[in-house]
Amino acid sequence: MDSDQLRSLLGQVRAGEMDVDAALERLKHLPFEDLGYAKLDHHRALRHGLTEVIFGKGKTPEQVVGIAARLLEKSQNLLVTRANEAIGAELKAKFPEAEYFPLSGAVRIRRNRTMYGKGTVAVVCAGTSDIPVAEEAQVTAEAMGNQVQVIYDIGVAGIHRLMAHSEQLMRARVIVVCAGMEGALPSAVGGLVSVPVIAVPTSVGYGASFHGLAALLGMLNSCASNVSVVNIDNGFGGGYVASLINRLE
Amino acid sequence: MDSDQLRSLLGQVRAGEMDVDAALERLKHLPFEDLGYAKLDHHRALRHGLTEVIFGKGKTPEQVVGIAARLLEKSQNLLVTRANEAIGAELKAKFPEAEYFPLSGAVRIRRNRTMYGKGTVAVVCAGTSDIPVAEEAQVTAEAMGNQVQVIYDIGVAGIHRLMAHSEQLMRARVIVVCAGMEGALPSAVGGLVSVPVIAVPTSVGYGASFHGLAALLGMLNSCASNVSVVNIDNGFGGGYVASLINRLE
Amino acid sequence: MDSDQLRSLLGQVRAGEMDVDAALERLKHLPFEDLGYAKLDHHRALRHGLTEVIFGKGKTPEQVVGIAARLLEKSQNLLVTRANEAIGAELKAKFPEAEYFPLSGAVRIRRNRTMYGKGTVAVVCAGTSDIPVAEEAQVTAEAMGNQVQVIYDIGVAGIHRLMAHSEQLMRARVIVVCAGMEGALPSAVGGLVSVPVIAVPTSVGYGASFHGLAALLGMLNSCASNVSVVNIDNGFGGGYVASLINRLE
Amino acid sequence: MDSDQLRSLLGQVRAGEMDVDAALERLKHLPFEDLGYAKLDHHRALRHGLTEVIFGKGKTPEQVVGIAARLLEKSQNLLVTRANEAIGAELKAKFPEAEYFPLSGAVRIRRNRTMYGKGTVAVVCAGTSDIPVAEEAQVTAEAMGNQVQVIYDIGVAGIHRLMAHSEQLMRARVIVVCAGMEGALPSAVGGLVSVPVIAVPTSVGYGASFHGLAALLGMLNSCASNVSVVNIDNGFGGGYVASLINRLE
Amino acid sequence: MDSDQLRSLLGQVRAGEMDVDAALERLKHLPFEDLGYAKLDHHRALRHGLTEVIFGKGKTPEQVVGIAARLLEKSQNLLVTRANEAIGAELKAKFPEAEYFPLSGAVRIRRNRTMYGKGTVAVVCAGTSDIPVAEEAQVTAEAMGNQVQVIYDIGVAGIHRLMAHSEQLMRARVIVVCAGMEGALPSAVGGLVSVPVIAVPTSVGYGASFHGLAALLGMLNSCASNVSVVNIDNGFGGGYVASLINRLE
Amino acid sequence: MDSDQLRSLLGQVRAGEMDVDAALERLKHLPFEDLGYAKLDHHRALRHGLTEVIFGKGKTPEQVVGIAARLLEKSQNLLVTRANEAIGAELKAKFPEAEYFPLSGAVRIRRNRTMYGKGTVAVVCAGTSDIPVAEEAQVTAEAMGNQVQVIYDIGVAGIHRLMAHSEQLMRARVIVVCAGMEGALPSAVGGLVSVPVIAVPTSVGYGASFHGLAALLGMLNSCASNVSVVNIDNGFGGGYVASLINRLE
Amino acid sequence: MDSDQLRSLLGQVRAGEMDVDAALERLKHLPFEDLGYAKLDHHRALRHGLTEVIFGKGKTPEQVVGIAARLLEKSQNLLVTRANEAIGAELKAKFPEAEYFPLSGAVRIRRNRTMYGKGTVAVVCAGTSDIPVAEEAQVTAEAMGNQVQVIYDIGVAGIHRLMAHSEQLMRARVIVVCAGMEGALPSAVGGLVSVPVIAVPTSVGYGASFHGLAALLGMLNSCASNVSVVNIDNGFGGGYVASLINRLE
Amino acid sequence: MDSDQLRSLLGQVRAGEMDVDAALERLKHLPFEDLGYAKLDHHRALRHGLTEVIFGKGKTPEQVVGIAARLLEKSQNLLVTRANEAIGAELKAKFPEAEYFPLSGAVRIRRNRTMYGKGTVAVVCAGTSDIPVAEEAQVTAEAMGNQVQVIYDIGVAGIHRLMAHSEQLMRARVIVVCAGMEGALPSAVGGLVSVPVIAVPTSVGYGASFHGLAALLGMLNSCASNVSVVNIDNGFGGGYVASLINRLE
Repeated sequence: MDSDQLRSLLGQVRAGEMDVDAALERLKHLPFEDLGYAKLDHHRALRHGLTEVIFGKGKTPEQVVGIAARLLEKSQNLLVTRANEAIGAELKAKFPEAEYFPLSGAVRIRRNRTMYGKGTVAVVCAGTSDIPVAEEAQVTAEAMGNQVQVIYDIGVAGIHRLMAHSEQLMRARVIVVCAGMEGALPSAVGGLVSVPVIAVPTSVGYGASFHGLAALLGMLNSCASNVSVVNIDNGFGGGYVASLINRLE
Repeated sequence: MDSDQLRSLLGQVRAGEMDVDAALERLKHLPFEDLGYAKLDHHRALRHGLTEVIFGKGKTPEQVVGIAARLLEKSQNLLVTRANEAIGAELKAKFPEAEYFPLSGAVRIRRNRTMYGKGTVAVVCAGTSDIPVAEEAQVTAEAMGNQVQVIYDIGVAGIHRLMAHSEQLMRARVIVVCAGMEGALPSAVGGLVSVPVIAVPTSVGYGASFHGLAALLGMLNSCASNVSVVNIDNGFGGGYVASLINRLE
Repeated sequence: MDSDQLRSLLGQVRAGEMDVDAALERLKHLPFEDLGYAKLDHHRALRHGLTEVIFGKGKTPEQVVGIAARLLEKSQNLLVTRANEAIGAELKAKFPEAEYFPLSGAVRIRRNRTMYGKGTVAVVCAGTSDIPVAEEAQVTAEAMGNQVQVIYDIGVAGIHRLMAHSEQLMRARVIVVCAGMEGALPSAVGGLVSVPVIAVPTSVGYGASFHGLAALLGMLNSCASNVSVVNIDNGFGGGYVASLINRLE
Repeated sequence: MDSDQLRSLLGQVRAGEMDVDAALERLKHLPFEDLGYAKLDHHRALRHGLTEVIFGKGKTPEQVVGIAARLLEKSQNLLVTRANEAIGAELKAKFPEAEYFPLSGAVRIRRNRTMYGKGTVAVVCAGTSDIPVAEEAQVTAEAMGNQVQVIYDIGVAGIHRLMAHSEQLMRARVIVVCAGMEGALPSAVGGLVSVPVIAVPTSVGYGASFHGLAALLGMLNSCASNVSVVNIDNGFGGGYVASLINRLE
Repeated sequence: MDSDQLRSLLGQVRAGEMDVDAALERLKHLPFEDLGYAKLDHHRALRHGLTEVIFGKGKTPEQVVGIAARLLEKSQNLLVTRANEAIGAELKAKFPEAEYFPLSGAVRIRRNRTMYGKGTVAVVCAGTSDIPVAEEAQVTAEAMGNQVQVIYDIGVAGIHRLMAHSEQLMRARVIVVCAGMEGALPSAVGGLVSVPVIAVPTSVGYGASFHGLAALLGMLNSCASNVSVVNIDNGFGGGYVASLINRLE
Repeated sequence: MDSDQLRSLLGQVRAGEMDVDAALERLKHLPFEDLGYAKLDHHRALRHGLTEVIFGKGKTPEQVVGIAARLLEKSQNLLVTRANEAIGAELKAKFPEAEYFPLSGAVRIRRNRTMYGKGTVAVVCAGTSDIPVAEEAQVTAEAMGNQVQVIYDIGVAGIHRLMAHSEQLMRARVIVVCAGMEGALPSAVGGLVSVPVIAVPTSVGYGASFHGLAALLGMLNSCASNVSVVNIDNGFGGGYVASLINRLE
Repeated sequence: MDSDQLRSLLGQVRAGEMDVDAALERLKHLPFEDLGYAKLDHHRALRHGLTEVIFGKGKTPEQVVGIAARLLEKSQNLLVTRANEAIGAELKAKFPEAEYFPLSGAVRIRRNRTMYGKGTVAVVCAGTSDIPVAEEAQVTAEAMGNQVQVIYDIGVAGIHRLMAHSEQLMRARVIVVCAGMEGALPSAVGGLVSVPVIAVPTSVGYGASFHGLAALLGMLNSCASNVSVVNIDNGFGGGYVASLINRLE
Repeated sequence: MDSDQLRSLLGQVRAGEMDVDAALERLKHLPFEDLGYAKLDHHRALRHGLTEVIFGKGKTPEQVVGIAARLLEKSQNLLVTRANEAIGAELKAKFPEAEYFPLSGAVRIRRNRTMYGKGTVAVVCAGTSDIPVAEEAQVTAEAMGNQVQVIYDIGVAGIHRLMAHSEQLMRARVIVVCAGMEGALPSAVGGLVSVPVIAVPTSVGYGASFHGLAALLGMLNSCASNVSVVNIDNGFGGGYVASLINRLE
């Protein structure tokens, strides 16, 4: 039952064609989203970033292109994450404006380049091996209308490199920090700034890194109070949360 | 070496009393915080919330009162977390305006009640056993100058209770969600709103909750993209991150 | 907005006092449980077993008695789990018909002794140390109106004891099996019968039992296909799920 | 020794051809299943679902076809789980009525389509990636003679989608819920209904999902009391337990 | 139904007082242990060591004394493990020949001092903190009729101490090795001898010993092929398995 | 320095060609195995089973053949474990009497078929998927000169199958039990017999079996006291320990 | 057999009182430490730091005093770790020069204050809660004859505090870094210096610190290559390893 | 701003072209590494071993060659770890003096063969499967200018083999011990010597070795106090820390 049906029902009541009890009964049992929650949902989609997202992993190029075509009817921007080369090629063939980022496997279509972010999102990573995750965060934040400042390869074992970027970091409105191994960079960055830091542990490492567990635990126990954490290798999540924060007016 | 010393050194150079090489040498080796980073740090403290924080656990009432007195010389507001009853009593005896929150063990002194938050911080919890953690988040956010909307006892196993609060949730600028056991509430809340959600897993539960691990893992794997996570039982961290977000202009 | 308010609104529409658009608007934004979901909830409570449940752990005797009194206004039966002796004593003082089960810490008030179960619920445990958990399952199932057959102390290391009870087990409509240590009993019981088996791992054991983890993992990997599992030491959950199954007509 | 042999022995005793002590000795040492337990076992097979099951993983197509042919001599229905395409093709070549379900790798032969279930089994899953596991549950429940209602893609981060299906869920007699990532859906479904919910954690996710551990722990800690759990990705187990419950008269 | 009853039934058949079908029916349904399995069980008890065992933890002194009295009617020897001082005192008051071993909390009554073991059982431990576990193994093996050679405090970090005992070790027929921390001693001992080594990990240690997990894993991965392992702190199990091996003729 | 050298040194002392201090000095620093420990080692090899063992995994066929040729100069029997098909083929080409067991990847050369075991070693497994591990145990025990009784496919979910083999089990002098999934079979077997049971957890299973961890923990927590455990999938270890036990006179 | 006995034996050989074969036989079978390894061991003790160590935990004051008295006959310096107040008091009563360090529970007797260390050992800790562990490292290193530079409370979230101490850190010959929570400080310190860093994880933290596991994993995955790690809370181990390094000439 | 710029600024002050306040302002805000910390970093590189290191894993041969060429402009020695055969071949083609070590995947270029180590570094491993990790340690230590003594295949289950090498071990200035499975060798070696032992756990093993976790935990709990630990399979780290220790004067 959509709004038209509800209007029609109320019209019947007003016209005396349906009595109050019958209307009451029908209202009580109608699926509640028909009462406007679909609208709410639509509203939510609008505010959530003007960008639809497809998780590409495990889908065929044809499937991704099909879903993408349908979503692009309603949304100007589209982000595909964890896409392999074949998906990237197919999307670029079909949508010439598609950008493929091979390190992270992200594909982005930006027809609307409005800046929704109020400030700069800094995306930082500790080592070159963390770049794929950081790139996913960067691509996500850009797709959602943010100015992104990328700072790569500043680990805690080379503090002077971190310090050299402290001015840049202090200018950001929100910071995404990606790090594997011991995952200490978010604490160090968090101590330098007074804005929210979104920590993204990466699975970079071996042995007792346990596929990112060491970095994850390190970040959850950060001695910097402005750090919150998303899942291992979840660059998309880091970029997404940062975008929501940066849009706040 | 503070600014005065640096000024004096430059004065000597200008006066021709010290040559450039000698000055260069001294500058290269002076501890770098003497060059104004202490100021930076001071600035950071100012912007970080006008509220100094003491972790009360493991300290004697005398120690806490001593630290509190010293901090209150520079800061108008003070928050003590994880304080036992004895610490609470001692602080109230010494600082009559101190408020003691026995559930969470927080003690708060608010001499400056300026609102720094731009909107409302919602603090939500799943069950009555999660209230101590939620209270710590609430007390923290209030101490940092935020309007806080508290919504307790809305678990995912009673969705209608959650839905009944959807309007309130949608009005918040940032939401802290505390939940133990399966930790599913942040996902449900995250799906209803388009603002950042800070998830705080609690150690509420038994058996396979493994002291909050189940809730923590659940939240890290949230299917809602606007969720980031802090440590188990870290209500302070949830309230702190939310406050930083809410202060963004 | 409850049914009366909704009726009144529809009456206003019918009487021409409110036009369709205004009514439409109000209907779209009213909290959805006002449309009868509270009733639904009430209905749910009715069907869920005529027994309200209080988790006693961490509550004072006064709190439990207070909640119990309120719940008993609406429900004839009441179950308190994980109650200590003080709570048990207070409840018996206030409600003379209360039964206190010291092994499991359950307290039960049964004013309605209707049998809702269609068959017998068997509650089985492996060793004497598992009895507190089994007792919680038994007390729960009885409180929800089931005939319960208790079979204690039949571990897999003494198969003849298990076999001696095979007839009893085969007569049950659903079986709750509580076991600690290696948690093998549900598989053995599951292989003997063709009805659902609810496995409750217990924290009985030491060393590599890891507080029930060994039993939990064993049960989840049962080679008997009719076994499903609840949380460690969750005798209440075992008895509750068994009761729901046994009520099915 | 089967019944005939036992009858013969007793006949010899009665005829005076064997004395009591010799008979006693033989009876004490005969394998106990010869006393009718094989019958019991047969009986068990009959009641367990009229459907024999082969775990296909790790077997060659020839092996599976061989076992299938032998089982189909005694059973009208057959289910093969975790079969790869080659097994599927071979089975369809040999048994034309075989259905192959490529997502889950299930193969089903249904020569007996009697409905043994008394009501509907609902099979629900959270995301599209969980469909293979849900399909295994569905195919199993159907093979065991149940009406199955499939509801896919209703996660807790989109509660309105869940609510839109609440009527369907409330009509089911037992519900299987498959979910990966944070595994929160069983709690949400469990709170809506008053029938047993069998939760199947899936290995869908990455990073801190730890191959389904996060979902498993979440489900074991469900705040909904009507939830019990089977192994990760065990769609067969979910469908099987649900079938046993649905057959109860 | 015991042997007498079975004899009586067969007698009735032989006497023509019961026909074959009726006898057949009764035989099929009688609990199978009545057919001599109780005897089997009794036999098992006899061969298992002439020593009954009570797990004392969690029992009151009165309960233990009661069980002990009953068991001593049938068994000459008795072992109580994990008994506290109160249990020890009560047992010594009631049974003057009882020996209490305060380190391990074992209590032993040996009325039959026959040696069943064919050789010597060596009980070895790595550090002084492991002695309680080793004592439990020693007391158990002695109670089961073995000559026990005790060698304490020979850790792998002092190989010369181990080597000094190599002759003693090589004379043993089976060796129990108790070790905490890194649990390396069983490998070192196992490499010196060619008899079975039963490894008992202890919970001695702190930090990353994780309550004996480190020692347990070490022993399971022993590079000596003659090592098998029992549960953490299970000195009783070590002594018991060693006794069974030493009794083999 | 071997015995001859030591004899020569002592001869020099006796002959007055070396004084006491010089001899003392040399003796203190000579590698201690020169004093006969190499002999000990040789002795150890002899008693350890007349069978040399090569771990085939990760070695090339050429390497294995090379090592095998060298070992067969000193030992009549040889066992290669975890050999792939190529290694198996190469060994059979080179040593025609070599037997290759493809399920377990074991290769065995038995030139000496003396029976060293005093009784029968029973090798039992729970399901058909556990057969490779059980086969490794069987091949090992046979190679070390034991009569082996193989009993496959008797899981705890079909107790009657287990009971049907109870006589065979009771006749064994030592039993190796291989089981994956919940790993409950050793407890059930252990309860039936009074001889040592060596439990071998296998990695058979999926999901919460965690590659054999569930079975391992189950076996370590066995309620049967005669069970000790070796590493996951370590059929060789199970067969080896059983052989040592069975050789005890 | 000590050197005197060996000398006597060789004297007998030289004097013709014992023939070569008899001497050979005795030499082969004597416990090998009699050949000077006891000396070796003594030597080892000498070089290991002139300081005997007693692990005080779990010992009575009387036991500790007794052991201490015996050790002080041979060693000038003594260290007792993990001593409670009672042990501390008793030791000070008996040995007036004993120093008791209540934070770490260390007791130290230094009669020999020779400096064996070639440079300075720096002991650093991240937060005030880590001080007990750092103190244990400091007391240990001092007891072993090292100049110790203590730097407390320099966490990675306040990098300027760390940088302010960089000169001190760069002057140390070896550094012990104690840190709990995320355990990031060793990486930051390791990046500043080119000497060995011994990382000591502490159990400081809560929730997902898992009693020091997070810090431990972080340190094992340090991106600074000069970091090695000891057990959680093992300040003694950190100080001991640092002392051995600092003594190297 | 580099030194030249700073000199120029000071020159302007001296020349009266810039007043003190303006200079002060500029100095306060310049990135602190411009003040000489880059030099510090350079200094650090020099002292850190004259050897630059590339982690080869995940890089293409072209990338590695490119980085290598650039680094060799400034450094005489270069180490590439975890290089596959293709990288090895490419490096040897480009730099003829490159040595490729296929077991460990290390590639080394040594143009400067100065010995910086003061003594010998011993590199020990337990089994042949540990050799790749030990080789990485050896190659690293040699590349950093150390005399390396390699001792392979001395496990704790063959103590006489270890003892046979005790002289060699006692002559080393620092020892790297690589071991998988139970990881007991560092304790045994640590007990023999009085120098620092760097333990490297390897992932050698199966089942409950959990990819090196068992060895790692064993080493962290070593009863030898001179042992510190690096990450699983981190032969490079072991060799690197040992080199730093061996360089200390």
